[in-house]
Amino acid sequence: MADPVQGPIEPGQTIGILGGGQLARMLALAAARLGLKTIVLAPEKDSRPVLGVAWRHLDADYDDKSALKELAAHSAIVTYEFENVPVAAVKYLASRVPVAPGHGPLETTQDRLLEKRFLAGLGIETARFDDVTHAEDLATAGAATGFPAILKTRRGGYDGKGQVKVAAADELAKAWNELGKVPSCLEGFVAFDGEASIVAARGVNGEFAAFDLTENTHRNHILWTSRVPARWNGAMTEKAHDIARRIGAAFDYVGVFAVEFFVVGNKLIVNEIAPRVHNSGHWTLDGAETSQFEQHVRAICGWPLGATRRHSDAEMTNLIGEEVNAWAKLAEEDNAHIHLYGKREARPGRKMAHVTRTWPLGRFPGKPA
Amino acid sequence: MADPVQGPIEPGQTIGILGGGQLARMLALAAARLGLKTIVLAPEKDSRPVLGVAWRHLDADYDDKSALKELAAHSAIVTYEFENVPVAAVKYLASRVPVAPGHGPLETTQDRLLEKRFLAGLGIETARFDDVTHAEDLATAGAATGFPAILKTRRGGYDGKGQVKVAAADELAKAWNELGKVPSCLEGFVAFDGEASIVAARGVNGEFAAFDLTENTHRNHILWTSRVPARWNGAMTEKAHDIARRIGAAFDYVGVFAVEFFVVGNKLIVNEIAPRVHNSGHWTLDGAETSQFEQHVRAICGWPLGATRRHSDAEMTNLIGEEVNAWAKLAEEDNAHIHLYGKREARPGRKMAHVTRTWPLGRFPGKPA
Repeated sequence: MADPVQGPIEPGQTIGILGGGQLARMLALAAARLGLKTIVLAPEKDSRPVLGVAWRHLDADYDDKSALKELAAHSAIVTYEFENVPVAAVKYLASRVPVAPGHGPLETTQDRLLEKRFLAGLGIETARFDDVTHAEDLATAGAATGFPAILKTRRGGYDGKGQVKVAAADELAKAWNELGKVPSCLEGFVAFDGEASIVAARGVNGEFAAFDLTENTHRNHILWTSRVPARWNGAMTEKAHDIARRIGAAFDYVGVFAVEFFVVGNKLIVNEIAPRVHNSGHWTLDGAETSQFEQHVRAICGWPLGATRRHSDAEMTNLIGEEVNAWAKLAEEDNAHIHLYGKREARPGRKMAHVTRTWPLGRFPGKPA
Repeated sequence: MADPVQGPIEPGQTIGILGGGQLARMLALAAARLGLKTIVLAPEKDSRPVLGVAWRHLDADYDDKSALKELAAHSAIVTYEFENVPVAAVKYLASRVPVAPGHGPLETTQDRLLEKRFLAGLGIETARFDDVTHAEDLATAGAATGFPAILKTRRGGYDGKGQVKVAAADELAKAWNELGKVPSCLEGFVAFDGEASIVAARGVNGEFAAFDLTENTHRNHILWTSRVPARWNGAMTEKAHDIARRIGAAFDYVGVFAVEFFVVGNKLIVNEIAPRVHNSGHWTLDGAETSQFEQHVRAICGWPLGATRRHSDAEMTNLIGEEVNAWAKLAEEDNAHIHLYGKREARPGRKMAHVTRTWPLGRFPGKPA
């Protein structure tokens, strides 16, 4: 393990980033504002968004040791933009250069079962869940979760991929076959009133800060809108902050992370943890004193965390696939802030851009859905 | 002259920028947010701030025709970050690619005498002034302006360079010698109550938008602080907007420009025009719905102008030379937004960074000075 960072990383130094998508792009732009350079390691096919906004780009796979070495050599600190980077790459880097967040949160959040067990160990409520390693586990798991339930692969799922809904016990075997008989986790279905998330940050000395509770909607399992204020009251925000604080402390986390919740009555049930900046925090670019991207840079560089106050009410909407063609129309809207990711091809389901509409504090139009 | 832009410039296209300082840097970052690429032409010694934030950098002098050709070939539109780029370069580019703003505002604002005459022609009040081409003109000019006065070279002056204060008629000859007997402009001294500026934008179809009147202070002739709200009332903002609107229309201007004022009682006396984004508009990055940099990109690309509303009260402070070393201390302040320009050497008088402190609307602490 490399030595931990001694004192803050200074303007002029370089941040290494694994991954070259829109999150890396927005991290690079935030770093530039603070006088920090960025070097990105990502295979070319994924890295359009960072071309021209990062100082350097290493076009290589995440398991390319010579590229990882080069990344480490240039970087004062390395971070990652998504949780599916190989743990081995992060461990290899960590032997040469400080990495934040470390491989611990990565290992836990890459595996739905480990993630649920981690949360249960902290006494944080999740959906009922059970391990399904072999076909024989299906019946026990079904008894543990009840129905309806969702069978999810332990690893590699995102945006609704790697999961099948199961209405009753007799559908379990079919779902198991459909997912390819890979190690999975059966989760009880949560009949939620709404979905929410918290984007939080933890500094090198355990300093904690979190943005306001965000109310989210999804479409085809992909985040569609994020709104602040959420429709729930301040006590719910405090509960969410408390959960995030405990998660951050348990990981000894450094950087920004997100916790996604199901809201049931006045209960918050954790759905998942993302060890990175998060789509539901994009509104902070236009509605908060500090953006989640600057906050992540501050945290991993050992700077004090920035203020998380909102200066505006806000609603972020993702532009998926061809929806990006609405940019010209959106540019006419008086309160719309457009962010385009520089991707060439508007493939279906691909996050191409987002727009955040803002209003003066307290002037969010109508009650959130 | 190249054809004017047909329809808006689209995400994925490229903006050419002459100049590679902090204004180009912040333009490049704003363009990236909108999915636009940037290519910068600037000699290496000036271009540290844009390294790593622009898509490409052409390391060349402004009169290098092959570099200008290359810039034109890559760009859908070309703009400039400062008013001392050679008019010949802009004219050469304009024969190959649309340029905004054009060479007209450049020619006028590069010459203090032409600028004053342009303003006088619009019936806009300036300090009394007179042309000093030969030593024999000094006495007439002194009679026209009265004393104290300031003798300024017509061309090339900035941040207090190229000017000498003249207390009485018998000091004129000495000042003339000191400036090297170059074509100059004698200006009557304005005993002002304060200094202010307006940052405004004009779109391709004459659309006009301006930010709030900003109250400025200078130190050693270099901008030190900019505050919004200014201490003057809304009627003064309207006057300033009216002046900017008339200037923009007379130039048939496209892009962002600034007008600097002396405030005397309830009068606004124009000091100078900057045909570009302006240091006194940096607060818009953290206090307004649209930053002046995004506004310039929108204007020159034929997009609708963005909203100029403030969401916060704000005070911008320049960090000059060694003052940049305060970054770590400033990072601890709850309401300080730090912008570092990526310059290596903190030379005396060099603008290294700025910080903008923000407060909720109406909560500016105390009365501006």
